[in-house]
Amino acid sequence: MKAGLSVLLALVVMSSAFGKYVPKSGKRIPQTLSRGWGDQLIWAQTYEEALYWARSRNKPLMVLFHLEDCPHSHELRKVLSEDNGIQKMLDEDFVVLNLMYETTDKHLSPDGQYVPRIIFVDPAMTVRADIVGRYSNRMYAYEPADIKLLKSNMEKAKKLLKSEL
Amino acid sequence: MKAGLSVLLALVVMSSAFGKYVPKSGKRIPQTLSRGWGDQLIWAQTYEEALYWARSRNKPLMVLFHLEDCPHSHELRKVLSEDNGIQKMLDEDFVVLNLMYETTDKHLSPDGQYVPRIIFVDPAMTVRADIVGRYSNRMYAYEPADIKLLKSNMEKAKKLLKSEL
Repeated sequence: MKAGLSVLLALVVMSSAFGKYVPKSGKRIPQTLSRGWGDQLIWAQTYEEALYWARSRNKPLMVLFHLEDCPHSHELRKVLSEDNGIQKMLDEDFVVLNLMYETTDKHLSPDGQYVPRIIFVDPAMTVRADIVGRYSNRMYAYEPADIKLLKSNMEKAKKLLKSEL
Repeated sequence: MKAGLSVLLALVVMSSAFGKYVPKSGKRIPQTLSRGWGDQLIWAQTYEEALYWARSRNKPLMVLFHLEDCPHSHELRKVLSEDNGIQKMLDEDFVVLNLMYETTDKHLSPDGQYVPRIIFVDPAMTVRADIVGRYSNRMYAYEPADIKLLKSNMEKAKKLLKSEL
């Protein structure tokens, strides 16, 4: 009787531990909103949400366009996510959004849709098309070697167009 | 000398393990895209992305509106995330999107913006305003007790308005 109860208990425990849905293709690692660009940052999910945060907190927004199967995106991600200075600045002074899919807003692709691409948006909701990288044909692209330029562009973005303070 | 090297090595190992950016307020748990609604599902990040997937895979889209500080959202989330039948159907037959922030698309709020709210969208991009819950004043709201109705509504959504097959 006691043994029977123990077996029953064990079965109940097992079914609650192993009873969760598992896809046929095997267990998946849950997707994060950071997608590797900074696990400690608080990421907006959508552009609408990011704009709302930027406006209400009076902070500039940084939008990162990237793709999972793009090696240039991966290289930039590694450098950006491991640079504590950038991570701290993003966390404290920016609203952040990373997207793998273009929005319908054409202002976010001033010279076309490509990845990786970094666009700053002022809390007054103006896209800072003036803050550019090193490449004249892809003005908002950055490579790992451009990380210093990216930092100084972040400083530029922090000087708001029209401060509400 | 050897001891010195060991200490140096230990420091290097420690700095690589502990050298990552940590916010002043303490370490954060990375946000997931699932936000607890089903860690094994592959979630679209934005409505644009979800519509693209629905169209290209010819699967209906389920959009879940919810809020972190809404107890009704929490209760529904618990039931929905622990129901293996629903999780399996969502994984295999649907495109899924959960949002904590409204989109600009008015079609997603046929009778107002409230949470929790579940809207189905056909791959032909028609919002299925005909698939409703039990409450006449909040037609797209569901409570934990409505889980059977939700399942039959999912079956309804699977019968596409205009099958391309």
